[in-house]
Amino acid sequence: MPDYDAIKAELDGIAIEDNPKLVRQKSRDFFWYSPILKDQLDNVTADLVVSPASEEEVIRTLKVAFAHGVPVTPRGSGTGNYGQAMPLSGGIVLSLAKMNEVREIHPGRVVAGPGAIIAEIDRQARAHSGQELRFHPSTANTATIAGFVAGGSGGVGSINWGGLRDLGNVLRLRVVTMEAEPRVLDLSAWDLQKVTHAYGTNGIITEVEMPLTAAYDWVDVLVGFDDFMDAVRFSDALAHENGLLVKEIAPIAAPVPYQFFSRHKQYVRPDQSVVVTMVAPQAIGAFLAFAAKAKGEILFRADTAESLKGLPQAFELTWNHTTLRALKVDPSITYLQVAYPGPDHVRKVEQMTKLFGDEVPGHLEFIRFSGQIQCSGLPLVRFTTKERLEEIIRIHEDHGCPVFNPHRYTLEEGGMKRTDAVQLAFKHETDPKGLLNPGKMIAWENPDFDFSSGKTFLFPGLATR
Amino acid sequence: MPDYDAIKAELDGIAIEDNPKLVRQKSRDFFWYSPILKDQLDNVTADLVVSPASEEEVIRTLKVAFAHGVPVTPRGSGTGNYGQAMPLSGGIVLSLAKMNEVREIHPGRVVAGPGAIIAEIDRQARAHSGQELRFHPSTANTATIAGFVAGGSGGVGSINWGGLRDLGNVLRLRVVTMEAEPRVLDLSAWDLQKVTHAYGTNGIITEVEMPLTAAYDWVDVLVGFDDFMDAVRFSDALAHENGLLVKEIAPIAAPVPYQFFSRHKQYVRPDQSVVVTMVAPQAIGAFLAFAAKAKGEILFRADTAESLKGLPQAFELTWNHTTLRALKVDPSITYLQVAYPGPDHVRKVEQMTKLFGDEVPGHLEFIRFSGQIQCSGLPLVRFTTKERLEEIIRIHEDHGCPVFNPHRYTLEEGGMKRTDAVQLAFKHETDPKGLLNPGKMIAWENPDFDFSSGKTFLFPGLATR
Repeated sequence: MPDYDAIKAELDGIAIEDNPKLVRQKSRDFFWYSPILKDQLDNVTADLVVSPASEEEVIRTLKVAFAHGVPVTPRGSGTGNYGQAMPLSGGIVLSLAKMNEVREIHPGRVVAGPGAIIAEIDRQARAHSGQELRFHPSTANTATIAGFVAGGSGGVGSINWGGLRDLGNVLRLRVVTMEAEPRVLDLSAWDLQKVTHAYGTNGIITEVEMPLTAAYDWVDVLVGFDDFMDAVRFSDALAHENGLLVKEIAPIAAPVPYQFFSRHKQYVRPDQSVVVTMVAPQAIGAFLAFAAKAKGEILFRADTAESLKGLPQAFELTWNHTTLRALKVDPSITYLQVAYPGPDHVRKVEQMTKLFGDEVPGHLEFIRFSGQIQCSGLPLVRFTTKERLEEIIRIHEDHGCPVFNPHRYTLEEGGMKRTDAVQLAFKHETDPKGLLNPGKMIAWENPDFDFSSGKTFLFPGLATR
Repeated sequence: MPDYDAIKAELDGIAIEDNPKLVRQKSRDFFWYSPILKDQLDNVTADLVVSPASEEEVIRTLKVAFAHGVPVTPRGSGTGNYGQAMPLSGGIVLSLAKMNEVREIHPGRVVAGPGAIIAEIDRQARAHSGQELRFHPSTANTATIAGFVAGGSGGVGSINWGGLRDLGNVLRLRVVTMEAEPRVLDLSAWDLQKVTHAYGTNGIITEVEMPLTAAYDWVDVLVGFDDFMDAVRFSDALAHENGLLVKEIAPIAAPVPYQFFSRHKQYVRPDQSVVVTMVAPQAIGAFLAFAAKAKGEILFRADTAESLKGLPQAFELTWNHTTLRALKVDPSITYLQVAYPGPDHVRKVEQMTKLFGDEVPGHLEFIRFSGQIQCSGLPLVRFTTKERLEEIIRIHEDHGCPVFNPHRYTLEEGGMKRTDAVQLAFKHETDPKGLLNPGKMIAWENPDFDFSSGKTFLFPGLATR
């Protein structure tokens, strides 16, 4: 056990929390979305939460942790649900929440502290010059920008801009290394791939520069269809309309909207599948004409609704919020993340829909992927057993629909199921002792792990706690 | 011969020009790009130019023209090069140049008079709220917005937004009909297809509402490649980068840049093919990294150039300005407009490049088309004979590359080579006497014309003059 009294003394002047109850609270993210992660990670907790207020304090903290050999797991608001921010080996949770300043706003770009709340960046950019971030997670109201960069991939707006991994969607990251003498690195262009979606395993982000785009008073619109596949085909056609500016297209199968969207239920029939969209105000006329031609029923329009009181914004019905709303009503619900590689993505969705029916109610997010319209799925799963869940995943993959498994806490298993050589090499440079967010990068922990074995990686550091 | 003295008297108070020299000047557009149209249309001239200053004056003019059975051909700045604004049957040229006000600017949209100059709309929208039109022709500095809507298709920015025909890229058009009592119609959504790219054959546009997007200080960049196909592949890959914001991607084959871009020649080697791009300032870092990886040589960057004196903007090297610059140096040059339907557009370009070599130097414009990246071509043609030109067109079409023939003055022959039933039906409603821009819509003049005959339509009204 590290000498935490000494550590605390050395961190004098930096905000520290060591009350076990509060530390446990700050050691948790949304891992419990997954019944499997819930079992595995429920007992995980840090020993100390450190909340630096500046880059200097980050550097001091890392220096002390390195000297004492204490693991450090960075954390924004803990809205991830792959266990990204869970400190598997205990040690220090490094909360970046205090470093939440929006530092600069320019035409086309914003500079912010790692802990800046995404919706707050948008609010300030909008007030400053009618701008907003290109895309954000459905957790924008609570999530931090560096948490998104380190643990997310895309979201609301990805229909226009793709994801965080795409060149140009992050402009610059400032990163502190975990060494005896921590270095500060400025990364841009290709170098960003070293750190984006690396769960903070190879550097602590202390500043983020992101591109901005034009902000609009996006109009939430729900469009109803009697058949989920009609909703999917409408969504696909809408996504292919170059001139019709929308920020979100998510078809969600019946009975999910009626069953789980408690606030919007009043607008939806039980047997209706719904396309959740956000439409630019100047595009509303064209959008309505387009929806009418597809025989979509306009169930709800925020711009003409009598009252918006008590209604969440439409984007809080999409991405992982679809799952969250379902979970709140029915705790047995979980979900998958599925790719349906194009150009026959609609056919693949139809196949899965027919195979699983209401056991796996459909939820798609249309996105732009390498310049092409695609859809990724976050279907709900009416969970029965782990075995059946694994079987559902296998069946998807056997039909050419890869699953990014949200029931795994490692980068590789939740992602491409292979070593990311760039991120691994960077970790060797920046975290030689392997103290940053241990257990999340299999390539580091067990270079010989066979991703094709079908076995789940179990981090020894977790088993021993 | 109509009684022009009576007509002039009835139009009292409206600006009129009847000096034959000046009328002839205002009866011409850029038809002379085409050696074929040059022969056919060189003698075309109107009898009178009428320049209304308001919608009321447009209505009065049309009423008088209708009563006297005089043809009316609307005109913006005459920058079209399909003979769109050529008054084939004489009569009145209706210049909308005076109605050039930018009337309203809102977030995401602008309302303007038909004669508003496109660059002026951008200038005002930018000063007002950092906005600009989604795309514009290379003639933005002189072309009018309604002329673009009525006679154009896309341009600089189409890589992001597609073309004018796409739902949402025009918001509203106000149109006056050619009847005994002209009506004023407001068209939006699907109805816009009645009038966009109809050459003013079925209504006179008196107000335009267009969507706006975020304006940036676009950086002109020229990237050099030793091989044209490397330039094409770089352009295609760049166009597929979701996060890398550019407004223009035009690969142009050697020796065109060196031979014809007299002002930019200093930056280019004779054997270099060049990709002309406009890059958002916030994307420059990523762009340079991307170009370096593709081994592209940065020949010119406007943001670091020592002096921009005397240099045209990069977009004035693209679209039809490529042709214009070539024509200025070598009057024997002409061009084609070619589609290379995807997904194998790059292969098709390669095939044509190999077949024709320097007789048809390549020039592509990358665009978004129904949600997918495509390229359309405006290759130059070193013109020898009409027969060879027709042969070059046939060979393209035999290889699956349809040609939108810029050597024809009719809507159909320059376009899809089939009747546009929507535009024809609308003409029956709005121009029962067929007085608007006569000779441009074959379906009206000769409903039995066989588009598959391979014959050129010759408007009888032109032959008799």
